[in-house]
Amino acid sequence: MSDGVTEFEKSAQLFNSSIAGWAVSAAWDIDLFQALTEADGIDIPWFAKKEEMHEPSLRALLRALSYAEVVTVDADRVSRGRTFEEFARSKGLFQWLTKGYASLFRRMGEVTYDRHRTGDFIRRDSTAVSIACRDVNDVFMDAAFTEVLAGLDFSVAADLGCGSGERLIQLARRDPSLKCVGIDIAAGAVEVGTEAVAANGLQDRVTLIQGDARQLDGHPEFEDVELMTSFLMGHDFWPRESCVELFRGFRTQLPELKYFLLCDTHRNPDDETADLPLFTMGFETAHALMGQYIPTREEWESVFEESGWTCVKRHPYTTPANTVIFLLERADRA
Amino acid sequence: MSDGVTEFEKSAQLFNSSIAGWAVSAAWDIDLFQALTEADGIDIPWFAKKEEMHEPSLRALLRALSYAEVVTVDADRVSRGRTFEEFARSKGLFQWLTKGYASLFRRMGEVTYDRHRTGDFIRRDSTAVSIACRDVNDVFMDAAFTEVLAGLDFSVAADLGCGSGERLIQLARRDPSLKCVGIDIAAGAVEVGTEAVAANGLQDRVTLIQGDARQLDGHPEFEDVELMTSFLMGHDFWPRESCVELFRGFRTQLPELKYFLLCDTHRNPDDETADLPLFTMGFETAHALMGQYIPTREEWESVFEESGWTCVKRHPYTTPANTVIFLLERADRA
Ligand SMILES: C[S@@+](CC[C@H](N)C(=O)[O-])C[C@H]1O[C@@H](n2cnc3c(N)ncnc32)[C@H](O)[C@@H]1O
Ligand SMILES: C[S@@+](CC[C@H](N)C(=O)[O-])C[C@H]1O[C@@H](n2cnc3c(N)ncnc32)[C@H](O)[C@@H]1O
Repeated sequence: MSDGVTEFEKSAQLFNSSIAGWAVSAAWDIDLFQALTEADGIDIPWFAKKEEMHEPSLRALLRALSYAEVVTVDADRVSRGRTFEEFARSKGLFQWLTKGYASLFRRMGEVTYDRHRTGDFIRRDSTAVSIACRDVNDVFMDAAFTEVLAGLDFSVAADLGCGSGERLIQLARRDPSLKCVGIDIAAGAVEVGTEAVAANGLQDRVTLIQGDARQLDGHPEFEDVELMTSFLMGHDFWPRESCVELFRGFRTQLPELKYFLLCDTHRNPDDETADLPLFTMGFETAHALMGQYIPTREEWESVFEESGWTCVKRHPYTTPANTVIFLLERADRA
Repeated sequence: MSDGVTEFEKSAQLFNSSIAGWAVSAAWDIDLFQALTEADGIDIPWFAKKEEMHEPSLRALLRALSYAEVVTVDADRVSRGRTFEEFARSKGLFQWLTKGYASLFRRMGEVTYDRHRTGDFIRRDSTAVSIACRDVNDVFMDAAFTEVLAGLDFSVAADLGCGSGERLIQLARRDPSLKCVGIDIAAGAVEVGTEAVAANGLQDRVTLIQGDARQLDGHPEFEDVELMTSFLMGHDFWPRESCVELFRGFRTQLPELKYFLLCDTHRNPDDETADLPLFTMGFETAHALMGQYIPTREEWESVFEESGWTCVKRHPYTTPANTVIFLLERADRA
């Protein structure tokens, strides 16, 4: 960000960018990305009226968006700006930050003190987080996941930290003979997911369990699993020693398990702040504030080795940055 | 902001800037501006230990600050960055935005819909707002206020929308014969202010009243007022017709009133977003969302004229932008 701007311009930029960040989330909330994809331009008063909106608020929202060149406003007409496509894609990451984790970031100073790090000090908006994650999966992640799966042979799949089970539902819909089991520690997510399973008529083949993915032994549903996946929760398996033991346990306790597809965001390789890509600083800051360690990519690789897994394929995502799919096979069979 | 960066860099910039905005508020909350003013550099582990802080959180906070060049981090040592002075001054405006009004900005999409604009839809953190305002007054505003007052002759002063009364307390401390009355609609502010008045031993000369500044008639305390001030609430006197009537009423109902010193932030003269200075977009967006009209400078001038006041002095502030002290005298006596 060393771009020759004066200190004064810099503070204005930071201030205005914060507002624009909220506006990107808000643009999604009012379906503006959709509306401006369908039409090249929209008449602002007409849109406000049709959507039963407060026009001055809509105009303020559009002005904040135009600061980031997401839209262009010309009198009563709003149209796509030069960054429109980019933000239409990354909106989920902005929602994650400015709505999902906003309450935690807002208390960044307070939670730095040990005395405030007790009880329920981690405040976040779980609904916003899960809406955000679903969109990030859709836009950025699912295609590569499907590609990595292609050619693998399995008839029972498990997902650890399955959230509301979308990934399993998709898998089961694509393969009518597949049986699936998912586990998540969040009761709310499992509840929502169980409804979605039923709505898709998949209750005979997809089971979601509320529980800790680090303790699968009590759950016979996992016995026949051949493919295990875990998305965006791998860091919850740490500290390292616990993770090694757990990954070893998967091998020894689940005799049918052939593939372990792990996808997680790792620590940024260097500490320079100037060029941090989208997501990294948010992800790492949030987890630092929550007291959750984030391993580096090297640390992950060494865990695979030590726990008897061989990484046979890697897919690094551009966005979210520092996020990799590792396809693991048993070292004794790979 | 059209600075030749790619769309992808732009979204990362916006994302990281949002985090840095929160970090500026947080830096103030943990007294870092103070600490790095007193020392050229600080050892991070030592500081964390002394302050009983979670070191990974402190490091995350510092990294976010270094993104905006507020500090420089070199291994265990943090020192002032090139924008340090600027943010040490503007911290109050960041606190206003990222803590004071964060809950409103976070709901920018929701409150755009008429159906969500009912009941108590304006959420803000009043404590953060008033801490922020006090600092902005100290850093940016008080010196010019004192200068404009110099040479004016008055023995009874009133402050409309006095908040917790700091301005009156200051005036009364400086002039031991001055009598003061303040009014604010917020009971909490008046309560805090009344305690501060007592703590300064000024209860015989400074009275704070909870009430609406638009209805002074029921309050005999205002009868002898010679100087009236009102800071950062003038827009609450609008719509225009009500404001004209009110300002006329001050003249006719308060026979001793000689000076009316009004200071408020007006609407930005043009709608271009690229170069919006610090504060403007935050102030205008927040008020749009709250449904509060913000007059232009021309609209203010025309109100003075029509209500029988002559503006004899103007002091425009650089920061907060678009903020002007208008010194008014009765047109019939000026
Ligand atoms: C960031 S979300 C990712 C959800 C989903 N895998 C996806 O890709 O969208 C992380 C999930 O892991 C779950 N989780 C965290 N720790 C867990 C644990 N020990 N056992 C089971 N689930 C856990 C959380 O409840 C949350 O649903
Ligand atoms: C932005 S604060 C400014 C406080 C103080 N004048 C200062 O300069 O720091 C605006 C103040 O105006 C008060 N206010 C708003 N409308 C009012 C009204 N109709 N009557 C009295 N006070 C009002 C609010 O309660 C708040 O304390």
